[in-house]
Amino acid sequence: MQKYEAAMDKGLEGVVACSTSVSSIVDATLLYRGFAIEDLAKNSSFEEVIFLLWNNKLPNKEELQSLQQNLLSNMSFSDKEILQLKTLPIKGVHPMAWLRTAVSVLSLLDLKSQSTKKEDQLFIRNSLTGKMLSLVALLNCIREGRDLLPIQKEYSMAWNFLNSLQGKEPTDEQVKVFDTCLILHADHSLNCSTFTARVTASSLSDIYSSIVSAIGALKGPLHGGANEEVLKTLKEIGSTKNVEPWLQNSLKNKYKIMGFGHRVYKNGDPRAKILKSMSKSLCEKSGDSNLFEMSNLLEELMKKEKNILPNVDFYSATVYNSLGILSDLFTPIFAASRVSGWLAHVLEQWEQNRIYRPKGQWKGKINQLWKPFDQR
Amino acid sequence: MQKYEAAMDKGLEGVVACSTSVSSIVDATLLYRGFAIEDLAKNSSFEEVIFLLWNNKLPNKEELQSLQQNLLSNMSFSDKEILQLKTLPIKGVHPMAWLRTAVSVLSLLDLKSQSTKKEDQLFIRNSLTGKMLSLVALLNCIREGRDLLPIQKEYSMAWNFLNSLQGKEPTDEQVKVFDTCLILHADHSLNCSTFTARVTASSLSDIYSSIVSAIGALKGPLHGGANEEVLKTLKEIGSTKNVEPWLQNSLKNKYKIMGFGHRVYKNGDPRAKILKSMSKSLCEKSGDSNLFEMSNLLEELMKKEKNILPNVDFYSATVYNSLGILSDLFTPIFAASRVSGWLAHVLEQWEQNRIYRPKGQWKGKINQLWKPFDQR
Repeated sequence: MQKYEAAMDKGLEGVVACSTSVSSIVDATLLYRGFAIEDLAKNSSFEEVIFLLWNNKLPNKEELQSLQQNLLSNMSFSDKEILQLKTLPIKGVHPMAWLRTAVSVLSLLDLKSQSTKKEDQLFIRNSLTGKMLSLVALLNCIREGRDLLPIQKEYSMAWNFLNSLQGKEPTDEQVKVFDTCLILHADHSLNCSTFTARVTASSLSDIYSSIVSAIGALKGPLHGGANEEVLKTLKEIGSTKNVEPWLQNSLKNKYKIMGFGHRVYKNGDPRAKILKSMSKSLCEKSGDSNLFEMSNLLEELMKKEKNILPNVDFYSATVYNSLGILSDLFTPIFAASRVSGWLAHVLEQWEQNRIYRPKGQWKGKINQLWKPFDQR
Repeated sequence: MQKYEAAMDKGLEGVVACSTSVSSIVDATLLYRGFAIEDLAKNSSFEEVIFLLWNNKLPNKEELQSLQQNLLSNMSFSDKEILQLKTLPIKGVHPMAWLRTAVSVLSLLDLKSQSTKKEDQLFIRNSLTGKMLSLVALLNCIREGRDLLPIQKEYSMAWNFLNSLQGKEPTDEQVKVFDTCLILHADHSLNCSTFTARVTASSLSDIYSSIVSAIGALKGPLHGGANEEVLKTLKEIGSTKNVEPWLQNSLKNKYKIMGFGHRVYKNGDPRAKILKSMSKSLCEKSGDSNLFEMSNLLEELMKKEKNILPNVDFYSATVYNSLGILSDLFTPIFAASRVSGWLAHVLEQWEQNRIYRPKGQWKGKINQLWKPFDQR
């Protein structure tokens, strides 16, 4: 038997899988097309960031307006699509499994889904990016027995999403905060779901297959699924006085603390810092800053005990919660933002494609000979 | 701007992504758990190969019988499943897109789909492996306005599949040939779809998500989609006298010749050799060996002109065609065999998991500063 090097099962850490110009992590910050995430979070809208991710430049006024209108029209479903989506089982169903299935179903109704023409692919890119946010709102509406509200074209994607999700018009602050969350989650280099999308695309499969794969990967608790787990943790802890004993017990038992640590950022996730300040402000205004204070204390103690810092999932949980969003929609919202990045990566992959086919290090038996039953 | 090394977009060729003991390619042959594919194709059944892939040993009689009965029972759908699957659009739909969606839908009806218990995961593994073959037969039945035939437990998976697919009992030879095809397609180290399944699984997402991802990746024409393309090519050529001019024209125009070449086998794909001899025998018996003769001539000319040999897709196309299977079901059948390998890999991934997160080589702009519209 060949010697097996256990050290190699490292999830391709440090291995270059491809070249990319979509996003990068340099000097402890995240850059979309070379623009620092802090700059974009402060100055841009989600729609502007989408334009940037897809076109490698900031839009002029007309370009931005044109993309906005396009994406907003894509946030509506046809009657046929709604009818089909409503046939999907929903009771007891994991929202990410529903979303994965819903996107797969939409492809069956899209006559262009198999097209290899660039213009059709761009059409699907825009369509899916609009529809993903609406799918999340639709899921919530179906559960609550309501219909999606009509898209209002004078408002943003964030506004329209919150309007349908809540069934009432959102405040300006809610829209601003949510829009910033969408910006922060839009891309993140070769994370697991983006990499899955690229690997799927590399067989020259279609866009829907790639996005369906990515949703499946994002679903896992080591990836997008973490933000939902963070809220569960905070609710389990219950109050600031319980934070320290809870943490000591968790560390003693080597439980995984969700929302902390990142393979790439060793000095803290820049997105967490932006989310933290929004979380603080929202909690204070709501008059109930318990969750924020628990989070803040947990962050301090984790730094002291383990020198591990919060990641994007940690404060996005309290922010979404402050917006009144149910925790099982956190990861679907993550997906509805990240789809813009996934699509940039899929199209980039096809510009210089080679099918992914790595090697496995053999750790099994060799030279086995088939024998009939009586000799086994 | 950093210098961009174009040479790196090589689909992870030669890069070790993980350790594995499921299958390997050594000295120009394919080994499942250390057993040569030629040995298994000659002596085993598909069910025995599944046992081997899942348990790392050949079964005894009782073990094989028990797995067979389990897989056969899993080939039936509940009324609820059938009802749900029949709501999916089917007209003009790509069969692999339908299959991907169908598996995703099945997860919504499976109460165990989110379980992280090993026993539930093994249950889903068996269930999906039985159901995938039946999904392909169901797709064909829905298109032809027929129902699936009841599973007959004294026969094999291959027999029951062909029985439902054709609506009549298959011959012994058909069953033997088809069973061998299933064996040949069951696993193939870290090919693109298997790797996709492992990457998806690495976020600790669920089995369904992993298999849905893998179906999406297999769908592409650089991967499983190739066998369907081979038949199209042969039909386009039409007769042996057209083979040489067709090839010369294709080479001159640098068209991709489907079914030839393989990143891993430089001296020929061992599966192609087995399929070729089956193809020859089937074509001769049918009294129409035109397709086989064209294939054989194309193989000879490709070797002479380019020194490139046929791969698994090349002769599987003519074999499936001889069995009377419609060409757009070739890739779904590939998926229904490969799912046994995908599942072995997903469970292996979880035994020593780390989330896949490779690095991208930056080839884009840096140091971009956000500016208002009037300064862009």
